Amino acid sequence: MSKVVKSIKEVVALAGLKDGMTVSFHHHLRNGDFVLNMVMEEIASQGLKDINVNASSLFDVHTPLLEHIENGVVTGISADYIAAGLGRAISKGIMEKPVQFRTHGGRPSDIVQGRTPIDVAFIAAPTADTMGNCSGKYGPSACGSLGYAFADAMFAKKVVVITDNLVPYPMQDFSISEDWVDYVVPVEAIGNPKGIVSGTTQITRDPVGLVMASHAAQVIAHSGLLKDGFSFQTGAGGASLAAAKFLKDIMMEKGIQGSFGMGGITGYLVDMLQAGCFRSLLDVQCFDLKAVESIRTDPRHKEISAMQYASPTSRSAAVDSLDVVILGATEIDTDFNVNVHTDSNGFIMGGSGGHSDTAAGAKLSMIIAPMFRARLPIVTDRVTCVSTPGSDIDVLVTQGGIAVNPKNVELTQQLKAAGLPIVDIHELKEKTERITGTPRKLPKGDRVVAEVIGRNGNLQDVIYNVP
Amino acid sequence: MSKVVKSIKEVVALAGLKDGMTVSFHHHLRNGDFVLNMVMEEIASQGLKDINVNASSLFDVHTPLLEHIENGVVTGISADYIAAGLGRAISKGIMEKPVQFRTHGGRPSDIVQGRTPIDVAFIAAPTADTMGNCSGKYGPSACGSLGYAFADAMFAKKVVVITDNLVPYPMQDFSISEDWVDYVVPVEAIGNPKGIVSGTTQITRDPVGLVMASHAAQVIAHSGLLKDGFSFQTGAGGASLAAAKFLKDIMMEKGIQGSFGMGGITGYLVDMLQAGCFRSLLDVQCFDLKAVESIRTDPRHKEISAMQYASPTSRSAAVDSLDVVILGATEIDTDFNVNVHTDSNGFIMGGSGGHSDTAAGAKLSMIIAPMFRARLPIVTDRVTCVSTPGSDIDVLVTQGGIAVNPKNVELTQQLKAAGLPIVDIHELKEKTERITGTPRKLPKGDRVVAEVIGRNGNLQDVIYNVP
Repeated sequence: MSKVVKSIKEVVALAGLKDGMTVSFHHHLRNGDFVLNMVMEEIASQGLKDINVNASSLFDVHTPLLEHIENGVVTGISADYIAAGLGRAISKGIMEKPVQFRTHGGRPSDIVQGRTPIDVAFIAAPTADTMGNCSGKYGPSACGSLGYAFADAMFAKKVVVITDNLVPYPMQDFSISEDWVDYVVPVEAIGNPKGIVSGTTQITRDPVGLVMASHAAQVIAHSGLLKDGFSFQTGAGGASLAAAKFLKDIMMEKGIQGSFGMGGITGYLVDMLQAGCFRSLLDVQCFDLKAVESIRTDPRHKEISAMQYASPTSRSAAVDSLDVVILGATEIDTDFNVNVHTDSNGFIMGGSGGHSDTAAGAKLSMIIAPMFRARLPIVTDRVTCVSTPGSDIDVLVTQGGIAVNPKNVELTQQLKAAGLPIVDIHELKEKTERITGTPRKLPKGDRVVAEVIGRNGNLQDVIYNVP
Repeated sequence: MSKVVKSIKEVVALAGLKDGMTVSFHHHLRNGDFVLNMVMEEIASQGLKDINVNASSLFDVHTPLLEHIENGVVTGISADYIAAGLGRAISKGIMEKPVQFRTHGGRPSDIVQGRTPIDVAFIAAPTADTMGNCSGKYGPSACGSLGYAFADAMFAKKVVVITDNLVPYPMQDFSISEDWVDYVVPVEAIGNPKGIVSGTTQITRDPVGLVMASHAAQVIAHSGLLKDGFSFQTGAGGASLAAAKFLKDIMMEKGIQGSFGMGGITGYLVDMLQAGCFRSLLDVQCFDLKAVESIRTDPRHKEISAMQYASPTSRSAAVDSLDVVILGATEIDTDFNVNVHTDSNGFIMGGSGGHSDTAAGAKLSMIIAPMFRARLPIVTDRVTCVSTPGSDIDVLVTQGGIAVNPKNVELTQQLKAAGLPIVDIHELKEKTERITGTPRKLPKGDRVVAEVIGRNGNLQDVIYNVP
C-alpha cells in the first residue's frame, strides 16, 4: 500500500479538482518555492477555470500566477501576505474579485471553523514517506517548521503532499501525519534552497537602525516585563535583529531567564536559546539555516501549528502568552494604526502575516521604524490601510524619539523616568515633516482591490486600486 | 493568563457538565490511574445523573464505577477494553443499557466522525503547563505516549487537563497542545506509578510458552514477509515477548533491517530498535519503564495518535502498513473467529483494544494461545463472542501445532515446506478435546449486556448476561 502518485498531472485529476474549487498552499519555501507554480501550471494546462487560491503567503517567485489570473484560471486569491511582484498587479486592478487578506491566526481560524473550506491542499514537504508522513526538518529543501500547513492538512477535503525527498515508510520524526494525507507526489525539486532560507539573517549596521534598536531594547528593559519568564517575538528585519542582540546583552548581564522566543525564528533567537535567555523556542516558520538546524536537533526548539501560534478561535494561542513583540510598519498614523500592506505609492507589497495577531496578544507591542524612508514620513494623519488597529499598538520607536500610545499612562511614566526620549506622536510627525516636507496626498482609485479581514473575521479595511 | 483551575470540583462546574452528558478518559495510566475515579467521584457528589463514560479502556482500579452505576450517576459505558473487576458485574447485568465495546481504531474514528460526541474530555497528563500543553513523557507519573487521548483532546466540546506536574509555560516537547485545552487542574497525584507501567515486562519461562514462541518466530521467518522493511507488532504477554526475542535473533543473524515496530511498546521492542532490527517505533502506548525512557530520549521512537495508529476512517493508519501482528485469544473457533472479550465462564474480562484493527491491517495476523487453559480447550465450534472476525486471522499457533486459515493456500504450503507442524484447526480441536474432554456448553443469559461494535461501526456481536 502506498499513496504515491506519479505526477502532479495525475494527482490533479485524482484529487477531483473542478472549476470553481479552492486549492491551498503554505509558504515555508518562501521565495524559493516551486510547488505553487508547478501545481497551478498543471491546473491551467488541464483547462480548469475559476480556481480560488488560498495561500498563507505569496512571494515574488509566484508572479506566474498573473498569467493564470489573466486567463481566468485563477479568479480568487486569499493570502496573509502578498509581495510586491503580484501586489503591484493586484493594485493595478488585474483581478475582478477583491483579494482577501487574512492574518496568520485568522487564516487557520477560518479554515478550522469551516468559513474558508479548502478542496485540495498542496503541502510542499522537504521530506515525506510513501504514506504521507512528512516534515520540513530534513532533506535538500529543508525549511524547518511546517507550522502554517497544519490547518490545511487537517481540514482540507483532499491533501496532497509534494516532496523531493521521498523516504521509506515510516519516516522518523514526522510533523504532519499520514492520517490526514491522501496522495504523495515525488518531484525533482520542490524549491530552490537559496530562496527558501537565508544563509544568515543580518543585523543592521546602519547607524539609524542601531539607534532605533538600542531605544527598543531600553523600552523593553524599562517596561516592567523584562524579568524571569519573559517572552519575546521579533521579525527578521535588520533593526529588529539588532534590538534582539541588545536585549540579549541586557538579559545576560542581569541573569534573566525568559520563557520563550517565538515567531519566524532566526539564528539570533537560536543564539538567545543557547545562551540561556529562553527555556524554549516556539516555531511556526524558520527564517535561516541556523534555525533549521536548531529545530532539527534541539528538543527545546518546538514546531507549532498556526492554530497554536495565533488563531483567535483556538482555546488559547501562544500569542496570548507573549510579553513583547517588535514589529515593523510602512506607515503609522497618529492613532497608532499601522499599515504593512501597501507601499508609499499605495501598491500592495506585504500583509499582516502575524502582525495583528501578535500585536493583539502581546502585553507590549512595539513598532520600530525610521522617521522617514526616501523622504516620506512614517507617521501620517491616517494610514492608507489599517493592517493592525492602533488600539493594539503600544509604542513607536524611531531614531527621533519614542512615541507611546496615550492609553499607556504608566508605561509613559516609566520610560520618561528612565530618561528615554519620549515624544508625542503628533510632535514626531511635525518634527519629521520639518525635514521631509509635507507629503502630497496619494491619488486613490475608486475600486476595491483587496479586503483586509481582521483576525476575528471582521472587515477591517479595504485597499483601493492605484490609478 | 492561565487556564489553571483550583480543583476538580470547580472544573466540573466550569466545564458545564449536566445530566445526560458524556465524559471521556484515556487509559495510559492503566491500573495506576487515579483520574477517572477522582472525576467521577466529584461528578457523583455534585448530584449529576445519567452520565455516559467513554473510556479507551477500563481497568480493575476503576471498580468504584460500580457504585456510580448503582446510584444512577453512570448509565452508559463505552470502552475498548474492560478488565474483569468491572466486567464481571456488567456480565451479571448491573447496567440497564448495554455497554458499547469499540476497537482502539474504531473509537477515535467515531469521535472524529461525530458519531460519539464527547462533552468533556479529561486528560490525565504526567506533565502540563499553565495553558494546557502537556505530555506523558515527563514527571513522576510518566507514562510515555498519550496516543489514545488525541481524538478526545481535538474533538471534545471541553477539554480538561489534570496533572500532578504543573510546569511554567511553555513546557518543552509537549504532545497535546494548548490550542485544544480549556482548563488545567493540578492535583496531588494522577496515579500510582507502580500501576502505570511495569518495571520490566517478562518473557515467559514456561516451556509451553517457549514452544509456541519458537513456532511463531518460525512462521514469521517462513512467511515471506521477513525481509528488509519488515514491520511488526506484538503484545506484552509472556509468549508474545518470547516470540519477539526469537524473532530478534533471526533478524540479527540474517542482518534484516525492519521498518517499524508498533503497538503498546515494551522494552523488548526498544531492544530491537536499539539493535537495528527496526528503523523506528510507532507508539500509541508504553507498557514499561524502558519504553517510557526510550520515547522520551530517542527521536526514532515516535508517539502516534490512535487515529494514526488504527482508525479505519483516517486516510491511512499505521496498521495498514503492518506486516505481522502477534495477538492473543481466550477462544478461537474453527472459522478462526477470535474472542478476547469474555473468559471461559462468559464473563467480560477484556476487549478488542487494537486486536481487530491490527488483524484487519496486518498481512499476517497470528494468534498465539495454548491448546487449553485450566482444562478448557482454546479451539471451539463457535466463540462466545466474535471480537475479531476469522477472515482477518491467518494463523493459530499452539504447542500442539500450527493451524493456518484455509484461505491462505500459499502460506500453508510455505510453512509445510519449512517442516513446521501444520495441523487442520478441526484436528487441533479434536486433539485437544482428547486431552481435556469435551467442555460443557456455557449457560447463556437472555439479556444483552454489551454490544461489540466492529472497527467499521458495524454491530459485530453481542454479549449476553451470565445467569
